[in-house]
Amino acid sequence: MKSLAQVLLAPQSVAIVGQSNDASKTAGRPLKYLRQAGYAGRIYPVNARRDEVLGERAWPSLSALPERPEHVYIVAPTDATMDAIEECARLGVPVVSALANGFSETGAEGEARETRIRQMLGQTGTRLVGPSSLGVVDLRHKVFLTANAAFDEKDLPIGRIFAASHSGGMIGTFLSRGKARGIGFAGLVSVGNEVDLSIGEICAATLDDAGIDGYVLFLETLRKASTLRAFALAAARRGKPVLAYKLGRSAAARELAVSHTGALAGEDDIADVFLRECGIARVDTLEGLIEGFPLLARVPVRRNVGRAPSVAVVTTTAGGATMVVDPLATRGITVQQPSTETLARIKQQTGVAVAPARIIDLTLAGAQYAVMKGALEILAGAPEFDMIVVVVGSSARFYPDLAVKPVIDSTNLPKPIAVFLVPEAPDALMKLSAAGVPNFHTPEACADSVAAALMRRAPRQLPDIPARRSAASRMLDEIEAYALLDRVGVPRAASIALEAGISTAPVLPFAYPVAVKALSAAIAHKSDVGGVVLNVRDGTALVDAIETIRQAAKVGRVIVQPMTSGIGEVLIGYRVDGDVGPLIMLAAGGILAEIHRDRSLRLAPIDIATAREMIAEVASLKTLAGYRGRPAGDLDALANALVALSRLAVADAAVIEAEINPLIVMPKGQGVVAVDALVRMGESR
Amino acid sequence: MKSLAQVLLAPQSVAIVGQSNDASKTAGRPLKYLRQAGYAGRIYPVNARRDEVLGERAWPSLSALPERPEHVYIVAPTDATMDAIEECARLGVPVVSALANGFSETGAEGEARETRIRQMLGQTGTRLVGPSSLGVVDLRHKVFLTANAAFDEKDLPIGRIFAASHSGGMIGTFLSRGKARGIGFAGLVSVGNEVDLSIGEICAATLDDAGIDGYVLFLETLRKASTLRAFALAAARRGKPVLAYKLGRSAAARELAVSHTGALAGEDDIADVFLRECGIARVDTLEGLIEGFPLLARVPVRRNVGRAPSVAVVTTTAGGATMVVDPLATRGITVQQPSTETLARIKQQTGVAVAPARIIDLTLAGAQYAVMKGALEILAGAPEFDMIVVVVGSSARFYPDLAVKPVIDSTNLPKPIAVFLVPEAPDALMKLSAAGVPNFHTPEACADSVAAALMRRAPRQLPDIPARRSAASRMLDEIEAYALLDRVGVPRAASIALEAGISTAPVLPFAYPVAVKALSAAIAHKSDVGGVVLNVRDGTALVDAIETIRQAAKVGRVIVQPMTSGIGEVLIGYRVDGDVGPLIMLAAGGILAEIHRDRSLRLAPIDIATAREMIAEVASLKTLAGYRGRPAGDLDALANALVALSRLAVADAAVIEAEINPLIVMPKGQGVVAVDALVRMGESR
Repeated sequence: MKSLAQVLLAPQSVAIVGQSNDASKTAGRPLKYLRQAGYAGRIYPVNARRDEVLGERAWPSLSALPERPEHVYIVAPTDATMDAIEECARLGVPVVSALANGFSETGAEGEARETRIRQMLGQTGTRLVGPSSLGVVDLRHKVFLTANAAFDEKDLPIGRIFAASHSGGMIGTFLSRGKARGIGFAGLVSVGNEVDLSIGEICAATLDDAGIDGYVLFLETLRKASTLRAFALAAARRGKPVLAYKLGRSAAARELAVSHTGALAGEDDIADVFLRECGIARVDTLEGLIEGFPLLARVPVRRNVGRAPSVAVVTTTAGGATMVVDPLATRGITVQQPSTETLARIKQQTGVAVAPARIIDLTLAGAQYAVMKGALEILAGAPEFDMIVVVVGSSARFYPDLAVKPVIDSTNLPKPIAVFLVPEAPDALMKLSAAGVPNFHTPEACADSVAAALMRRAPRQLPDIPARRSAASRMLDEIEAYALLDRVGVPRAASIALEAGISTAPVLPFAYPVAVKALSAAIAHKSDVGGVVLNVRDGTALVDAIETIRQAAKVGRVIVQPMTSGIGEVLIGYRVDGDVGPLIMLAAGGILAEIHRDRSLRLAPIDIATAREMIAEVASLKTLAGYRGRPAGDLDALANALVALSRLAVADAAVIEAEINPLIVMPKGQGVVAVDALVRMGESR
Repeated sequence: MKSLAQVLLAPQSVAIVGQSNDASKTAGRPLKYLRQAGYAGRIYPVNARRDEVLGERAWPSLSALPERPEHVYIVAPTDATMDAIEECARLGVPVVSALANGFSETGAEGEARETRIRQMLGQTGTRLVGPSSLGVVDLRHKVFLTANAAFDEKDLPIGRIFAASHSGGMIGTFLSRGKARGIGFAGLVSVGNEVDLSIGEICAATLDDAGIDGYVLFLETLRKASTLRAFALAAARRGKPVLAYKLGRSAAARELAVSHTGALAGEDDIADVFLRECGIARVDTLEGLIEGFPLLARVPVRRNVGRAPSVAVVTTTAGGATMVVDPLATRGITVQQPSTETLARIKQQTGVAVAPARIIDLTLAGAQYAVMKGALEILAGAPEFDMIVVVVGSSARFYPDLAVKPVIDSTNLPKPIAVFLVPEAPDALMKLSAAGVPNFHTPEACADSVAAALMRRAPRQLPDIPARRSAASRMLDEIEAYALLDRVGVPRAASIALEAGISTAPVLPFAYPVAVKALSAAIAHKSDVGGVVLNVRDGTALVDAIETIRQAAKVGRVIVQPMTSGIGEVLIGYRVDGDVGPLIMLAAGGILAEIHRDRSLRLAPIDIATAREMIAEVASLKTLAGYRGRPAGDLDALANALVALSRLAVADAAVIEAEINPLIVMPKGQGVVAVDALVRMGESR
């Protein structure tokens, strides 16, 4: 049996259901494109109302065909598409792509259609791309199963990148913008609604394709994130890098309520950490996505996380070069001044005395081949740089050969090189691309891609925990929540439960003063309902406090704890996200941390090194690290508590949310202690 | 006498001192370019060692010329340049531009050269562009007094924008990148070191030029900021907009110490507020600078500061359109969902039922002329939008005429329109540019320019206060500082000074408990030297506290104040910046505000409305505005205190820095009170 990749990208036979006789219509395009490209396999146009389309024989139905086609593209209206998918499944067509809209994006009726599609496919073995897929293209095999207008073009460069997109229009954008930059693709796919095959599964199917060096993804959602992660991990094992643009940096999501973990995290944070944990490099600019792959393919994953990645910026035009410094620095990349030795070696090699500064300005001398080439050799051997960014001035426009030759001749050097051309210099860009040298048209896309490449890390290995959406859930009360914390090992305050309505206080297992709080799974915010009395100093006051709480919060039980104070408070949270699965979060405590949204996230579970990274990422926690002479907090204990809470991912699959707010941080050596906890348990449907 | 603009941009005669006989050399270019362009005036090459250059007669010196040239460009080495400037000044040449390096950028020797140049120019009336100027170009008058390689080009489009740059290379970048986008310039100038003429003065000289609609600036520094501001204000009066890119968003500046106003402000904050207060629109992307002016020229200055500017995003390709939403939203622009009425009117006008969402997706129907045109008409009349962003899909590449025609035919609508083309579509871009429709090649540059244009405000009128750098300064002690606050009207704590060493406490004019602090202009951080005792409860304790402070801080006097507590603390500061002049700053108090660099700046003095804007800009101060049920602070009193402190700019020119930290904010209606103040007075040289 043929593999999914073979029938998807290199089918021997294809059918187009709904192929129109009018090549200017959307449904007229696939046959036109296939013929235009010279597809060598067998093509079966299917049109129930015509014997002939675009001068070729048309077949009335899929069952009338002389063979079972390997890949069917359905470009019919919605209802006819449903019928055609059913027929494909019945006939055992290996793979179907479907263009029609009218599915989950349109509401309940569309959702029902998707459910029916899943039922039709069932166990038949037929796989579906879409619906709402603008198609599947393999430029090498001249497979143009697409209705995207952008493919009506000659001289499309064939490359070694595979592009996949949630947006159908973007596969055309990849094509036209890539062509203008000399960047070609092996194949492109518009994945549509992912009712069956997800973007991760489609890419994973191509991993053994020796003609594909890596992937660029345009993501609108993290639907079916587990298959994306599985693909990314497999790609990492094969050394095939993945570059992604993900919509949603802004989003009303950020303005959402901040009262619980999920909302505080916000959707883009989750996407960011998920992609990072998958080893997927994320860019923020369209041109970074188009131009960035060749660079990514040359940059090894980041090993030393403790140090900011550093680049050498070498140029003949300081003003232009300075433009890459700002966007690099704001993305956390150090533009590194060369060491004295490096400058001495450049002088020795090239005769040029470079002034010590963050930008290595060869001035006009750098326009000489030997000077630029020599400088690149020295910089490639200098230990202080992870990458070299070459900024070329106006010579790139007027003498494109001369200007880029020293860079092209330096591709064998043991350090990645990226080129930013300051003027409009299309010839130089094309020459660089042809030679495989990563090059950029704007300082922003250059910095975006450089940072994305240098920040990319190897995926962390994690147990395979499926994402879940629970139909129903229930809260634990605080005593039950502490029992859960005890199981995973998060330190918490000593606590006892007391019945409300007692007239004398029992002997407590800890000293006064104490805190008294309503004990009820039904109350999430105890202080909002008068359910908290602090600093209770003796037994009489305790009885009074319990009565006060009983009346205010209408509860039958209270929880009593010793008063605890530390030198800081944090919020730690665990949540099973519906898309990406278990997450662990650390945020600074208090209202200002909320306002500044100062927090760090990871997929759970984490190890101690990851916990320490998270602590370093929360800016407010500098105040607990001995900042400006302040006492240091027990950040080791905080790291341990994070690791422990994250272990819920493996210890108890029923927990869908656990938030400790606050976790009191004591002085160094004295630990941390949870003094409140909210836990939500999922219930099976 | 001719104006500076005439001799600078339209001289009747020019001389090139140091003109080389080799057109491939930098010093060989000006004559070559002038002839190539067909400059109609008289050209005098000056070369002391040759009778002929590039086939033309060369003159041995400026004094040997048959007339005094109106504009001399010196392309000679540094020392010869000094001599030539001297000769120009002696001969009374109206304007000189100079290419040579070797001035202040190289250290003391170069600084001395600049001083000598200023002496040479003296009162002669000769004005200088540079040195380190790559030249002055007026494309209309074919004046190519430049050594920039980028001008060796045919078919340069002539436009109505004047470009000025600190970086010489950038004038070439403007040219080549502008040409590729169909954007032309009237003139371009590389201002070099601004030893005499500043970028502001040069642009100001061209304000009466009817062929110039506005300005694009590439700024590396705010040196001579007062002339830039004077130019910007005059440009605003004439309705000629100014667009700027300013290097320095990042900068080690941000990592500087945070202990006083200046450092906390950080250089880029100052640049940002300065440009905003000048009514100059600032972009962050190179392409925003190249492509942004046509849009800026169509957008009126912002009036309603209380509401985020809002745009309609209308498209035929939702995936592509979504790419502009993120960068718009992160820049504070609301992508506004149309009202129900607007959607109904679109339906009525075009027959298309648009789904209610932030993006107005006309789907494929929008490819029809009447649909897009009709939708634009409705959107232009809809009150909920300040601007329309049209996002065009693949049709822009294949049917450029059809795709952009409805937009080109909508330029008469009463609302600015910007176009982002998703595919690579150079023809469509050129057609839009030719029709004067603002258009963008990337979603990021589009959003950058849209935000810069919509955020631009009319310059605030301010008294003309020169920036000063004081050679020396002295601190006031706290009692003296309070006297200054009393003069401008900033409320401060009741205070008395006591001699150290007293054995009985005097009767205080306020009740215990009190705070006791060392009183000395020499101590900036009293608590660091044991100079503070708080919560002193009676006279005996006061005597003890004074003695403790006397011994620890080695002071002869203390200041005593009642203990004050409010519901929040802020830092307010005033500083005369060496570049931009008086500044007023508001920052949240406390260590977290420092870490998050949460603050707002304005040029001083300010009015009460501006003070309120500043308060709204400091995110942490939400906690004093009734956030989440917290008590509200007296923000009216805080606004008054800011206004009062900012008045130092007019009340006392000798104050170069005044910082109140903390200013205690009391509950609403109870005012604010300064409980510490540092004041630095400048001393005349």
